[in-house]
Amino acid sequence: MKAVDYTKVEAEEVNVEGAKNATIRWLISQKDNAPNFALRMFDVQPGGFTPYHSHDWEHEVFVLEGSGMLITEKEEIPFGKYGVIYVDPNMKHQFRNTEDTVLRFLCIVPHQKTAKKNKKNKTMNPFAGGLVNNC
Amino acid sequence: MKAVDYTKVEAEEVNVEGAKNATIRWLISQKDNAPNFALRMFDVQPGGFTPYHSHDWEHEVFVLEGSGMLITEKEEIPFGKYGVIYVDPNMKHQFRNTEDTVLRFLCIVPHQKTAKKNKKNKTMNPFAGGLVNNC
Repeated sequence: MKAVDYTKVEAEEVNVEGAKNATIRWLISQKDNAPNFALRMFDVQPGGFTPYHSHDWEHEVFVLEGSGMLITEKEEIPFGKYGVIYVDPNMKHQFRNTEDTVLRFLCIVPHQKTAKKNKKNKTMNPFAGGLVNNC
Repeated sequence: MKAVDYTKVEAEEVNVEGAKNATIRWLISQKDNAPNFALRMFDVQPGGFTPYHSHDWEHEVFVLEGSGMLITEKEEIPFGKYGVIYVDPNMKHQFRNTEDTVLRFLCIVPHQKTAKKNKKNKTMNPFAGGLVNNC
C-alpha cells in the first residue's frame, strides 16, 4: 500500500517530441506493485501542451486545475476544472493549456494491452459495472 | 470518447451495509466503453464513511477535497487534499471523513481480476513503466 501527499512524488519533464512545458508525476505505478493501471499527474504550463499522437491504449482523465483544449481528429473540445475526459484507444489527442495559469490533470493508463480473451469474460469485480456502489 | 463536467454524472447513494452518508459518481465506466478500469468520484459527508471491508482488487485513490482517515488492519493513516492512496488487493480498508466539510476523492478500480498469465507478459504499453513520460 501507499499513502503520500502528491508533493512526495517527483515531477519529471515530459521530454518527448511534440510536448512543451509539461511535467509528469507517476503517483501510483508498477513500482508500487499496482497490478493493472498507473495514475499520473500532469502539470502543463501556460503555452504548453502534450504531444498530438495516438496509441493503442486508452486515457481516463480528470482535470484538477486550470483550463485547456482537447484536440482530436474530429473536433476541439474545451475543458475546465473537474472536467472528465475519456480518450479511446487509437484516437489522436492532445491536451493544450489555453490559459495563463497551470493546467493540472490526472491521467490513468493501463499497464498492458487488453487481452482479447478477456472481452468474453464475465466481470469479476461486481462493482465495476455500476451494479453495486462501493469503495 | 467522452468529455463532460463531473456534474453531468449523477451522484448515487452508496447503499451498501457499512457505508454512511456517501455518494458515488461513475465518471468513466464500462458504459463508456472504457476497456480496463472505472473512474469514480466519492463524496463522503461529515460523519460519513465507506464500508470497512476487503476484496480481491486494488484501489487507486486521489483526494480532491477535505480530509479523512484511512483505516486498515494494521494502522490508521490521516490524509488530506491531493493525497495519493494505493490499497492492495485483499487489504481491509475504510475511508472516513474526519472533518466538518465534505470529503471528496477519486477511486479507480479494474473491471476484472488480473489474469494470472498476464503477470508473465511483457508490458505492452511503453509508458506504463515510467520509461517514457507522456500522455
